[in-house]
Amino acid sequence: MFLTRTEYDRGVNTFSPEGRLFQVEYAIEAIKLGSTAIGLKTKHGVVLAVEKRITSPLLEPSSVEKIMEIDEHIGCAMSGLIADARTLVEHARVETQNHRFSYGEPMTVESTTQALCDLALRFGEGDEESMSRPFGVSLLIAGRDENGPSLYYTDPSGTFWQCNAKAIGSGSEGADSSLQEQYNKDLTLEEAETIALSILKQVMEEKVTPNNVDIAKVSEKYHLYTPAEVEAVISRL
Amino acid sequence: MFLTRTEYDRGVNTFSPEGRLFQVEYAIEAIKLGSTAIGLKTKHGVVLAVEKRITSPLLEPSSVEKIMEIDEHIGCAMSGLIADARTLVEHARVETQNHRFSYGEPMTVESTTQALCDLALRFGEGDEESMSRPFGVSLLIAGRDENGPSLYYTDPSGTFWQCNAKAIGSGSEGADSSLQEQYNKDLTLEEAETIALSILKQVMEEKVTPNNVDIAKVSEKYHLYTPAEVEAVISRL
Amino acid sequence: MFLTRTEYDRGVNTFSPEGRLFQVEYAIEAIKLGSTAIGLKTKHGVVLAVEKRITSPLLEPSSVEKIMEIDEHIGCAMSGLIADARTLVEHARVETQNHRFSYGEPMTVESTTQALCDLALRFGEGDEESMSRPFGVSLLIAGRDENGPSLYYTDPSGTFWQCNAKAIGSGSEGADSSLQEQYNKDLTLEEAETIALSILKQVMEEKVTPNNVDIAKVSEKYHLYTPAEVEAVISRL
Amino acid sequence: MFLTRTEYDRGVNTFSPEGRLFQVEYAIEAIKLGSTAIGLKTKHGVVLAVEKRITSPLLEPSSVEKIMEIDEHIGCAMSGLIADARTLVEHARVETQNHRFSYGEPMTVESTTQALCDLALRFGEGDEESMSRPFGVSLLIAGRDENGPSLYYTDPSGTFWQCNAKAIGSGSEGADSSLQEQYNKDLTLEEAETIALSILKQVMEEKVTPNNVDIAKVSEKYHLYTPAEVEAVISRL
Amino acid sequence: MFLTRTEYDRGVNTFSPEGRLFQVEYAIEAIKLGSTAIGLKTKHGVVLAVEKRITSPLLEPSSVEKIMEIDEHIGCAMSGLIADARTLVEHARVETQNHRFSYGEPMTVESTTQALCDLALRFGEGDEESMSRPFGVSLLIAGRDENGPSLYYTDPSGTFWQCNAKAIGSGSEGADSSLQEQYNKDLTLEEAETIALSILKQVMEEKVTPNNVDIAKVSEKYHLYTPAEVEAVISRL
Amino acid sequence: MFLTRTEYDRGVNTFSPEGRLFQVEYAIEAIKLGSTAIGLKTKHGVVLAVEKRITSPLLEPSSVEKIMEIDEHIGCAMSGLIADARTLVEHARVETQNHRFSYGEPMTVESTTQALCDLALRFGEGDEESMSRPFGVSLLIAGRDENGPSLYYTDPSGTFWQCNAKAIGSGSEGADSSLQEQYNKDLTLEEAETIALSILKQVMEEKVTPNNVDIAKVSEKYHLYTPAEVEAVISRL
Amino acid sequence: MFLTRTEYDRGVNTFSPEGRLFQVEYAIEAIKLGSTAIGLKTKHGVVLAVEKRITSPLLEPSSVEKIMEIDEHIGCAMSGLIADARTLVEHARVETQNHRFSYGEPMTVESTTQALCDLALRFGEGDEESMSRPFGVSLLIAGRDENGPSLYYTDPSGTFWQCNAKAIGSGSEGADSSLQEQYNKDLTLEEAETIALSILKQVMEEKVTPNNVDIAKVSEKYHLYTPAEVEAVISRL
Repeated sequence: MFLTRTEYDRGVNTFSPEGRLFQVEYAIEAIKLGSTAIGLKTKHGVVLAVEKRITSPLLEPSSVEKIMEIDEHIGCAMSGLIADARTLVEHARVETQNHRFSYGEPMTVESTTQALCDLALRFGEGDEESMSRPFGVSLLIAGRDENGPSLYYTDPSGTFWQCNAKAIGSGSEGADSSLQEQYNKDLTLEEAETIALSILKQVMEEKVTPNNVDIAKVSEKYHLYTPAEVEAVISRL
Repeated sequence: MFLTRTEYDRGVNTFSPEGRLFQVEYAIEAIKLGSTAIGLKTKHGVVLAVEKRITSPLLEPSSVEKIMEIDEHIGCAMSGLIADARTLVEHARVETQNHRFSYGEPMTVESTTQALCDLALRFGEGDEESMSRPFGVSLLIAGRDENGPSLYYTDPSGTFWQCNAKAIGSGSEGADSSLQEQYNKDLTLEEAETIALSILKQVMEEKVTPNNVDIAKVSEKYHLYTPAEVEAVISRL
Repeated sequence: MFLTRTEYDRGVNTFSPEGRLFQVEYAIEAIKLGSTAIGLKTKHGVVLAVEKRITSPLLEPSSVEKIMEIDEHIGCAMSGLIADARTLVEHARVETQNHRFSYGEPMTVESTTQALCDLALRFGEGDEESMSRPFGVSLLIAGRDENGPSLYYTDPSGTFWQCNAKAIGSGSEGADSSLQEQYNKDLTLEEAETIALSILKQVMEEKVTPNNVDIAKVSEKYHLYTPAEVEAVISRL
Repeated sequence: MFLTRTEYDRGVNTFSPEGRLFQVEYAIEAIKLGSTAIGLKTKHGVVLAVEKRITSPLLEPSSVEKIMEIDEHIGCAMSGLIADARTLVEHARVETQNHRFSYGEPMTVESTTQALCDLALRFGEGDEESMSRPFGVSLLIAGRDENGPSLYYTDPSGTFWQCNAKAIGSGSEGADSSLQEQYNKDLTLEEAETIALSILKQVMEEKVTPNNVDIAKVSEKYHLYTPAEVEAVISRL
Repeated sequence: MFLTRTEYDRGVNTFSPEGRLFQVEYAIEAIKLGSTAIGLKTKHGVVLAVEKRITSPLLEPSSVEKIMEIDEHIGCAMSGLIADARTLVEHARVETQNHRFSYGEPMTVESTTQALCDLALRFGEGDEESMSRPFGVSLLIAGRDENGPSLYYTDPSGTFWQCNAKAIGSGSEGADSSLQEQYNKDLTLEEAETIALSILKQVMEEKVTPNNVDIAKVSEKYHLYTPAEVEAVISRL
Repeated sequence: MFLTRTEYDRGVNTFSPEGRLFQVEYAIEAIKLGSTAIGLKTKHGVVLAVEKRITSPLLEPSSVEKIMEIDEHIGCAMSGLIADARTLVEHARVETQNHRFSYGEPMTVESTTQALCDLALRFGEGDEESMSRPFGVSLLIAGRDENGPSLYYTDPSGTFWQCNAKAIGSGSEGADSSLQEQYNKDLTLEEAETIALSILKQVMEEKVTPNNVDIAKVSEKYHLYTPAEVEAVISRL
Repeated sequence: MFLTRTEYDRGVNTFSPEGRLFQVEYAIEAIKLGSTAIGLKTKHGVVLAVEKRITSPLLEPSSVEKIMEIDEHIGCAMSGLIADARTLVEHARVETQNHRFSYGEPMTVESTTQALCDLALRFGEGDEESMSRPFGVSLLIAGRDENGPSLYYTDPSGTFWQCNAKAIGSGSEGADSSLQEQYNKDLTLEEAETIALSILKQVMEEKVTPNNVDIAKVSEKYHLYTPAEVEAVISRL
């Protein structure tokens, strides 16, 4: 009886003969089932836009939070398991507050991202705060610090990259192609908003409304758009 | 030998190759076997109504509690494993009392819901308070705080949503459709009571009596209806 | 190879694909192998009656304890694994004594029952006091407090119900039907004794004697009948 | 592939679908392989008699201890795994000494038996003192306290019964039948000795000698018979 | 698929359906592969003799220690896994030293043996000092205390017996028969030496030399024979 | 059923019958999937060069860090799982800082390497800092201490070697051959730069640009090349 | 389905039905894959010689350490997993330093060896310092103490033997035969050097050079030969 690759993923943190970590790869699959999120960095700040899947008209759209504030200078968009993302964001909020308290200054965006990824990497270790499985979520972390605006992308393996623009979730493949065509470093924030929402529109099955998308930006500070502000962006498409 | 999906659920908190968490999905099945519960939010408060399965005439109907008070401004209806729900409610009661003690004010409905979901999310982690499996229960959490009345729905994955109206349990599919047809934001509390009970009546196999349903509302405070009050609602159907 | 349901019960606290907890269901089977116990609540108090299986004439009947005192106002009858029941009763005795010591008043019957069920629910959690498997026992808890007499029924899942009358153990199915026919709320304690023992007599294979049944009541206080008192009830049949 | 019952016993403390605990049942099998032990209670005290399997003429018969003193008023005979019995007896000795020290009076025979069974019940729990499997031993505990003489019988499940007479081990079935025929409550201690040894003689394959049986009694105190005293009983057969 | 007995031994301390502990039985097999050791008790002291398997002429015979001193009045011969025996002997040495320190007198031979067996019994328990498997070694423990000379035999189950004479290891079966023929209680120490070595000679494949056997006695104290003393015994054969 | 080698790797730290540790070998496979890194030691310092896989034009090249500083006199290049490498580098940074603090002098390159490997070796041990699986990364550690420049190579087994030149990652086989041809001990740092980059160029599928390679040297101190410095090396090819 | 022997090695420390410990046997296989090491004891000191496998001309030969100092009077040669050996040597270094500190005198060679083997024996026990698997390494421990020079050989089971001469590793079988032919107790140190290296030469596939062998001696103190000293021995062959 030759055991197939499916044998390897039961140890949550075990290499397969080809050197792969299947549980991490399966967690990445969870994200491919998630709603699409898009981030764009400009010289003036970062724009995040997400699709909100409102499965029932009786759901309160504002309670489907897929963009969350971490600190006043950092926000993030998420795709995948929302409950997992909440745990990561809560962890990051504590870290950034501790940093402010200890050093009297905001935590840099990279350090915040690193803190998130340290937690994500240690799944299956039996630590107090870590999970028994990988976190099934990807984040787009937008922030501004002494180095200016920055956009980070994290995956369930605990790895992160800095990007100019990035899409995650079920529509990420098409959205990434569109971003590569339309992105340039000299975009204004307003142009970035328009690009983000027009790409989101392409990958969404429904009509875009202030109810089923959220937009946020980090220019000076993190700001989540009001329905009216979202409506204004939609009207420009 | 290709192992089927049933192999994956034995690790309680492990991703399948498609990125799914089977134990959570199986716990959701436990809720589909449960009795039906319905919640409706109005401008004046929230109404909860549940079916009570009285399996024997010798059972004391009042001891089958499927609507419970969490704090004087929050109550919840449940479907699934009642013993699991009791543990969650007990946890929430402690949290809300601690909040009052520490801050001298009631805990918001969202924070209370988040506290419940934090506990639910961490199953299989070996923490002192968490379970070795997902909690096999869904809750409809009704409350009123500085933001007015609100209704939250939680599932075994530790995710929650804010809703205008929502049904859970074995009759939830039909009940949700009826709610979408009949719900509007300008309902009075009395209209909400009538809708809740008439929909419950459709999905129950037995005649509705004060013995086999419970109704509660959170207008100013949480209030569980007396049999006479339930009878009054029934008479309006 | 499709794994059958028998795969799921090896994790003691794991959901099957249909949302079932097999170890709890198997523990309930252990109770179906147990001796029959019956409880009836009247306005004047609660009566408990149990079958004692005296497997050898050399056994001391009084040492086969299937009705035990928890506190002076609470007693319980049990069916299933006696050693498990002893652990639960010992736990309840400590809880009720602590309550008296801390608050200067007896613990209510419901709180005592809840304390027992909290312990029962947490099997497989690795806690100090909890078991590595479900407790293989059902209890009928009879008591009297400020709300008058009450009768509770618990099962291995940690769930409990308040009843007017209830039978557990191998003869419970037949006994429950008989109880439904014969029970009414205006029974005197004496009538309850007679009904309990006459139903027990139907489900027992042997002749009823003071040696092979036990009777207890909680009217003002818990009282276990002497052989002479049992004989008196038998003579009334 | 339908898994057979043999799958269930690998979790040491898990219910089978029929509600059985196989590891306990298998431990009981270990006792059926053990040497036979017999206990009889009289008004004047309790007699214990055991078969000693002297597998080699070079073994020191007195070092094969199958009757041991627990306290000066309690002794026990054992069948099954001797090393397990020693652990239980050692535990009981500590408990009885602690009781004398704390309360200035001997521990009752029932409390001592209960303490032994508490330890036996908690196998597989990971406690400091408990075993990872059931104790593979049955005990006949003979003692005298303020309630007069008493005889208890324990099995690997942690359950105990009070008996007038009882046999354990490989010859227990035949010996129990003989005990039922010959026992009555008015036996003198001398008659009890004679009955115990004559029944033991029936179930042993070898000739009875002071080398291959041990006898003890608890009348006022625990007393293990000298070879001469054993010889005297043998001569009466 | 009916699982064979080989399934049961993977839980190191689990009963098989027949009430057997396979890991203990397999450990006993390890001893049957070991070198032969023989002990004889006389009125004047105890003699131990062991076969040393010198697998290479380049090995230092004196470094193959199969007879070791525990205290000045106790020594032991071993068969099975030597590294396991060293752990047991080291444990016994600490126990006997502690006893001398605490009580100002030597530990009795039986208490020392009991201390060894307590450790051996608790394999698989996760204790600090215990092993995760049975100790794969049998010991012949020779000593002298206030009760005169004594010889104990221990096996991997943690059981011990007092013997007049006993052989362990691969040649034990034949050696035990010879011991039964030749042993009597009135042997002188010199006769015991001669019997031990002549029996060892029968079961060894090689010629007996001071290099491949060791002899020790405990008359007043433990004494390991010098090569010249061994040679003297050999010359008497 | 004969179990294949795939059975052995599920225990993360278990020998196969041939004496192999499969999880370590599988982790080494993970490195064969990684990007190529090259190190060369000269009398004047050590040069490190790595390929950076920029999977999208929207990625910030400088955020793909595959050469990292450990202390001001030590740097390392990595191939394999970047998140794992970060954990090791973070560990080394703490060790070197502690050393400076405790002894007032820099840690030697060998001690730093040994500290990294101690952590790597102890995977699967349940220690606080160690991983539950091998670290899926190889490092080239370049440094300068009182013994002059040195270059170490580590693999997932926790073993390390000192080298004059070494390549790791997917192109290591070809790169190692080229290094053996071109390396000699009298290279200048400039020549080493040129060799490193020309070999990297051979194994990379894309054109070499300052965006997709990183170069660092440790002559007096660790120095990561600026894009302009990298461009200068490229222009010499 | 009869399970083959391969089932037994998954519990790292479990007996097979024949009384074998497979993980230890598999670890011994790891040593058979290792490089050859040879030790010879003379009246004047002990000589150790090892083959160094220099897999690449770019490797620094001196960094392939297969002979290491434990204390100034003890050194050891190793074969098997080098990282495992480092852990054992580090442990022994701490033990010998502690001994010097506590007692003001060097630790004897036998005590040092015993300390190493105690650690090796306890694999799989979950202790802080022990491994979760056997150490995959054999050691030849050479030292000099008050008893003169001595040579010990250890294997993964935690057993040790004192030897006059011994070879370990892939060429040990042939080397041991040659040692038996050529060894005598009156060898001078110089003769021992020559024998060790000539035997090593026979089992090595490559030409012997100062780069691919190491030699050390413990006469008064431990001394590792310089390349020139090794060259001198080679020239005598």
